[in-house]
Amino acid sequence: MKIDGQPFRSIWLHPEDNHCVRVIDQRSLPHQLQIEDLRSVADAARAIREMHVRGAPLIGATAAYGMYFACLESQDLDQAAEELKQTRPTAVDLAWAVDRQLQILRPINDPEQRTVRALEEAQQICQESVDFCAAIGVHGLPIIEAMSQVKGGEVVNILTHCNAGWLACVDHGTATSPIYAAHDAGIKVHVWVDETRPRNQGARLTAWELLQHGVPHTIIADNVGGHLMQHGQVDLVIVGSDRTTREGDVANKIGTYLKALAAHDNGVPFYVALPSSSIDWEIRDGLKEIPIEQRGAEEVKYMQGLAEERLTKVLLCPADSPAANYGFDVTPSRLVTGLLTERGHCPASEAGLLQLFPERK
Amino acid sequence: MKIDGQPFRSIWLHPEDNHCVRVIDQRSLPHQLQIEDLRSVADAARAIREMHVRGAPLIGATAAYGMYFACLESQDLDQAAEELKQTRPTAVDLAWAVDRQLQILRPINDPEQRTVRALEEAQQICQESVDFCAAIGVHGLPIIEAMSQVKGGEVVNILTHCNAGWLACVDHGTATSPIYAAHDAGIKVHVWVDETRPRNQGARLTAWELLQHGVPHTIIADNVGGHLMQHGQVDLVIVGSDRTTREGDVANKIGTYLKALAAHDNGVPFYVALPSSSIDWEIRDGLKEIPIEQRGAEEVKYMQGLAEERLTKVLLCPADSPAANYGFDVTPSRLVTGLLTERGHCPASEAGLLQLFPERK
Repeated sequence: MKIDGQPFRSIWLHPEDNHCVRVIDQRSLPHQLQIEDLRSVADAARAIREMHVRGAPLIGATAAYGMYFACLESQDLDQAAEELKQTRPTAVDLAWAVDRQLQILRPINDPEQRTVRALEEAQQICQESVDFCAAIGVHGLPIIEAMSQVKGGEVVNILTHCNAGWLACVDHGTATSPIYAAHDAGIKVHVWVDETRPRNQGARLTAWELLQHGVPHTIIADNVGGHLMQHGQVDLVIVGSDRTTREGDVANKIGTYLKALAAHDNGVPFYVALPSSSIDWEIRDGLKEIPIEQRGAEEVKYMQGLAEERLTKVLLCPADSPAANYGFDVTPSRLVTGLLTERGHCPASEAGLLQLFPERK
Repeated sequence: MKIDGQPFRSIWLHPEDNHCVRVIDQRSLPHQLQIEDLRSVADAARAIREMHVRGAPLIGATAAYGMYFACLESQDLDQAAEELKQTRPTAVDLAWAVDRQLQILRPINDPEQRTVRALEEAQQICQESVDFCAAIGVHGLPIIEAMSQVKGGEVVNILTHCNAGWLACVDHGTATSPIYAAHDAGIKVHVWVDETRPRNQGARLTAWELLQHGVPHTIIADNVGGHLMQHGQVDLVIVGSDRTTREGDVANKIGTYLKALAAHDNGVPFYVALPSSSIDWEIRDGLKEIPIEQRGAEEVKYMQGLAEERLTKVLLCPADSPAANYGFDVTPSRLVTGLLTERGHCPASEAGLLQLFPERK
């Protein structure tokens, strides 16, 4: 999508140096646009672990390039794979991308050939992500179109949580893809952007994306969505997913479950947009089987923002109070209206998913 | 309750100057303890409007002293009452305290006598708040005690939202009163403190109160409570109320409804602690009849905290993105396990409330 009118992706090969991969260091958005060069497995692992890059598909793409760096550096592939997989525990795309590279690269003995193949595959993974996200937009557009018709062309209000936008992917985004598609098709949309504490990916990233693309939006505290739904101010919820089980349970940014409960209580359709790469076909019960990442207390106790043109961290609470920081929660499939994938949308159930992905039967 | 071992109330008459009422300017907590002198209707109105003081009972107490200042300043009582009532729209205690003063003061023609009576009544309103809050603790304690027994003496985990502590009242608090009572009785309790965006009253005030009193607690983002309840880590929710309807609907800090939904979905008891002064006997349907305050976007877009020993405001989002700021939401009575008042607890229904308050039949 565009930044200041220029088309951008969230990750790309340096045009003049193919030993270097460039990403946007998302920690300083929306205040500063910092481009970062990655040149090693360690760089890629750090960028993922310290969340310079985040979002399940982009994590996968970065890890795929990480395996390319392992080839460039003649590192042991299994060791590199392990290092990359250890960076974040919840997103399934990470392991998926690394394993895909491993499977392709292991049989290749010639180092040079292996390196070429690793780069090719990383670029293929990125392009697939772009294509999948675009397809999610194509399949999601009619849902928004239909809502617009029901409302006689009035603005369709869509709530989203966290950032499942193009910054979380390689382009288009997952949850945002139908929104961009609708906006570009001239349908009136307005997005309620959940702030998404503690890391504020909604207020920092989704708002910035929408602003750059000219999509009307309003930032709200995470506490507000229920009230808006009670008063008919939300027509549709669309969120992303970090991992979806075979039976349609969805792990996504902490707080998603609360919005799903409110949508259910108020009859608001609740859609989850996801590329099939984030489906974990091996597990069924999301609550029991998906490990939930716990992060440092500082992310809760401190907040970063702009003060007098400088990025500044402020302490929000008594220094001596402890804080807990759970990164994700699981929304049970019973609260999900539909899963929106690159092949179309389906009920959040094994039967629903197998209709779209019969090869997984 | 105590600050650094010294007993404090949230509002008190200056011991050497009874034309002056002192409050804690809660905007700078927990980083600085600033005591503020109020000497006029304008002072009281500003302290309420700009949230130097907040919390339904404390707002009522401050407004009651505001009416005392009106007498001291020989102001028109109705005009002063109007000025005070206009400061915040949602809390019923505000209008209740002002009207109580009006009713008592209007018939008194002698200015001096009226002033004396106004001070007396303001002090009486404060003392009643203290007594009511203490009684809420007495009636709430057995609920926590019973939970502790069910758990064989293990820690009882209580989640609370916003600050319904002694800083919101005059002393003890409403939601916190049973918690302090249980802690002081030697029952093991641990409190999950919702941060409570956008003004962070949980992370700033509730955490600080509990820390000062030595009650174990952990600050969490507002997004986290649902996840904790899904995993059996919350035994009980206790929140306060800004206005409760005759049928038991509860207006409280924005986000309360989301926690009530999660508690209901996971079978976690959800109690609302309130002094009867915050019951609005005239209305039934909270969703339709309680006006919800909208505040400035800056409270969402900026956050204040401590940076290098200085209170600093940081911008969290793109400067050009709009934000909406709803102060409260309404939790329907069907999601409330019980209302906890100074006369005991009851089901959240008209029948339940009338059992405790038969004079309202």
